Amino acid sequence: MYSDLQLTEDRPVYIQVKDYLKRLMLKGGLQPNQKLPSTRELSTLMKVSRSTILLAYAELEEEGLIYALKGKGNYVSTLIETQQTNAIHWQLDWTAEVSDYAIQAEQYDLMKHGSGAERGEISFTSIAPDEKLFDLQNVKRAFLDRMSLEGEVLLNYGYAQGYRPLMNYLLHYMENKGVDLAGKDILITNGFTEGFDLVLGALRKKSGKALCENPTHHTAIKNLKLHQFQLTGIHMEPDGLDLKQLEQELAGSAYDLAYLVPSYHNPTGIVTSPAKRTEIIRLMNEYRVPIIEDGFNEELRYSGSHVSPLISSMGKGNGLVYLGSFSKVLFPGLRVGWIIADVALIDYLESMKRARSIHTSTLDQSLLYQYLSNGNFEKYLKRARTEYKRKYELAVHCLKRHLPMCQISGAGGLHLFVQFPPEVRTRELLTACKVKGVTFTPGDTFYLEPGQGLHTMRLGFSRVSDENIRKGIRIIGETVASMM
Amino acid sequence: MYSDLQLTEDRPVYIQVKDYLKRLMLKGGLQPNQKLPSTRELSTLMKVSRSTILLAYAELEEEGLIYALKGKGNYVSTLIETQQTNAIHWQLDWTAEVSDYAIQAEQYDLMKHGSGAERGEISFTSIAPDEKLFDLQNVKRAFLDRMSLEGEVLLNYGYAQGYRPLMNYLLHYMENKGVDLAGKDILITNGFTEGFDLVLGALRKKSGKALCENPTHHTAIKNLKLHQFQLTGIHMEPDGLDLKQLEQELAGSAYDLAYLVPSYHNPTGIVTSPAKRTEIIRLMNEYRVPIIEDGFNEELRYSGSHVSPLISSMGKGNGLVYLGSFSKVLFPGLRVGWIIADVALIDYLESMKRARSIHTSTLDQSLLYQYLSNGNFEKYLKRARTEYKRKYELAVHCLKRHLPMCQISGAGGLHLFVQFPPEVRTRELLTACKVKGVTFTPGDTFYLEPGQGLHTMRLGFSRVSDENIRKGIRIIGETVASMM
Repeated sequence: MYSDLQLTEDRPVYIQVKDYLKRLMLKGGLQPNQKLPSTRELSTLMKVSRSTILLAYAELEEEGLIYALKGKGNYVSTLIETQQTNAIHWQLDWTAEVSDYAIQAEQYDLMKHGSGAERGEISFTSIAPDEKLFDLQNVKRAFLDRMSLEGEVLLNYGYAQGYRPLMNYLLHYMENKGVDLAGKDILITNGFTEGFDLVLGALRKKSGKALCENPTHHTAIKNLKLHQFQLTGIHMEPDGLDLKQLEQELAGSAYDLAYLVPSYHNPTGIVTSPAKRTEIIRLMNEYRVPIIEDGFNEELRYSGSHVSPLISSMGKGNGLVYLGSFSKVLFPGLRVGWIIADVALIDYLESMKRARSIHTSTLDQSLLYQYLSNGNFEKYLKRARTEYKRKYELAVHCLKRHLPMCQISGAGGLHLFVQFPPEVRTRELLTACKVKGVTFTPGDTFYLEPGQGLHTMRLGFSRVSDENIRKGIRIIGETVASMM
Repeated sequence: MYSDLQLTEDRPVYIQVKDYLKRLMLKGGLQPNQKLPSTRELSTLMKVSRSTILLAYAELEEEGLIYALKGKGNYVSTLIETQQTNAIHWQLDWTAEVSDYAIQAEQYDLMKHGSGAERGEISFTSIAPDEKLFDLQNVKRAFLDRMSLEGEVLLNYGYAQGYRPLMNYLLHYMENKGVDLAGKDILITNGFTEGFDLVLGALRKKSGKALCENPTHHTAIKNLKLHQFQLTGIHMEPDGLDLKQLEQELAGSAYDLAYLVPSYHNPTGIVTSPAKRTEIIRLMNEYRVPIIEDGFNEELRYSGSHVSPLISSMGKGNGLVYLGSFSKVLFPGLRVGWIIADVALIDYLESMKRARSIHTSTLDQSLLYQYLSNGNFEKYLKRARTEYKRKYELAVHCLKRHLPMCQISGAGGLHLFVQFPPEVRTRELLTACKVKGVTFTPGDTFYLEPGQGLHTMRLGFSRVSDENIRKGIRIIGETVASMM
């Protein structure tokens, strides 16, 4: 006892001594009313200074865990008694206690059941930004700037709707994309995902049916299913949704919502054409189906053409809910996204947000605001685009060379979508590639029905080095060749 | 046109020029294929340098919004055409589109329908920490320390379960409170509120009934109701729950859960006695009712006696879900809380968390971790306790003096609970006090049934100056006297 104290470097020594003694008491190694060693004695046993022991004892006394008798020394308090003796070791079987929602959330959790990448592999599975691009100096600058201005405010409770300067910045930002803000408002969320979850929870289920692109973002599929929506997928053509099918489905059944990713769609990378955008809005209006627009990637274009979100074409119309995020272009570790929608809907969403998590971290919001308003965004975006464009072009080049039999889509963003000839099953290809240290996301992950997209893959290139893009795609090519 | 450009200080000028022109185009002030002024001309009109205009034009060209004809000048692109002409102004009545959940969330939203404080009032409504206590220097230090160590990691995606160093710190912290961690695990949440919402969503509804203290934390009542639980309130005695009533209710009906705040209960401030804690655990085990323990305030004791959470008395038992938060002692602006529970339950909760918001801000988590492991917590807590204790004692002193007819409860934390003689309706008292610039929370806010707690009030003192504590309580006292 005592001499087995193991010190670590990450905490003050007197606290480690205090914790050591506390645990002894709680685990019964020291009994109520037992005398503790003198400070001198303990100092020798623990090989720490006597003043450290004095500090530790003072802390323990302050916490009521020990008491001092004048001239006699320190004793363990009786207060810890209850805890030691009354443990019942009550056991519940939690697997029988959880809701269907919890069970489904676990079942659909790709981080648990998907094919993750292992260390050392060349992994094309991620579409997160490349952290080497992060300009940490400006992030630090923004933090210090904001903390100096109103540190106390940032660290105390904020408001459910969001941090006002950031809200104003983003409203302005959206206005610059051509959004008519009359009758609309904004809510700050913990990224796209929370925003989507809130909106799905806020919509009244009438038909219980939802439309989406097929394939589409797997997290969106998961969340739509978790909200018990029955999904109808619309086939993707090179310029966006198959409008014939869309109209048929709309005519055939009522839908509560349509979830759409019009720019650099996940996983196909397709940008819906201006003509189709107009037609989609017209149809949704005709059939009164609210659109949930996911603008996740719209900044990451590499060609000269300008892409506006659908909401820019809505004028004063309020039938669209826009979900924004900088997670793919800035820092996803800060969980900040936003919703632009009709004021009446935002009012409900604000109350839901308050009930669920009070508000999004004020620190994250204010840091992001300061970073943006310091003028860093434009510069960073330019740098990120240059870098990702190079990788994008390299990946396209390698794919054309090593997988000449494939169709490639993707006009921007952080990934490409590859369609193999029907005889190539990408799950089998993945198994073979993993052996050679290369991994990607099998495209069927993004399809609504089993058996769809079996010969497709998504290739995320943002976090793969040029060398590994070359090597990885070459290996995929060689592996396919050996399988065919 | 052009000369009405209004510059602000918060963004680079060329971006403001770019945005100005972009908006002109989007709003139809500049038509497709229209020639733009020369850079020299625009420089004069806008009163900014020509190099700024050059930069702005380059940005617009890069975005595909304008095109240059060699030797002729710059022209508006045709790409913006669609947007201007196709707006349908589609209108939906969102109040008819929202779910019952959204409607209830709005109805129960006290920030919208409660009695808030106005500027300049002496407000006893808040139980948030006093931001004057925040040690910003150490927060800055922690941020810079952590950013230097692994800035890139912090800004990119993290894990749903949490930031590992913080998880380890908190596990250790809970172990030091006597928690047996065998078979248990941790999940980091966006504060207590998200944790509670996740747990309520994870529990299978069998009876659909839940037990709680009456009165209790109003956000908890709201969230239990939003999850469609039917609530049975147990009367509070000075040393905790009325055990007779508890046993009667348990014998009379099945319950899916009990939500309990055993230390510095909100709103009564009561600390459940050790004997009652043991008995509560025994009863809940006997009737197989899982406990959700809210440890929100347990650090804020002002007397010498040691308070452990209930979970410390559970040994290897897994029937309790502990929700922790530092929001009342450290910085609520960082939305970080945690759940300690059985590994099987945490596994489900982790997937739910991932589905709803991916993960809690890594920046918040890592900043908090570094702040804690720099050894600031103990020092800060000591300072906060000293400060709050003084305010607490002052408030008790003033209450005894000015409201001698009242019963006061609260042995720690950031608020006191006051029971007036039955003839004093605190809602009426509040109306009268507000006229005199003093506000508090009427106690009925915290009760389950209308008509309960009509003669009670919660008095939060953490953010009120000593002078205003004296003045505010004196005014309440005078107002009661004039009403009686």
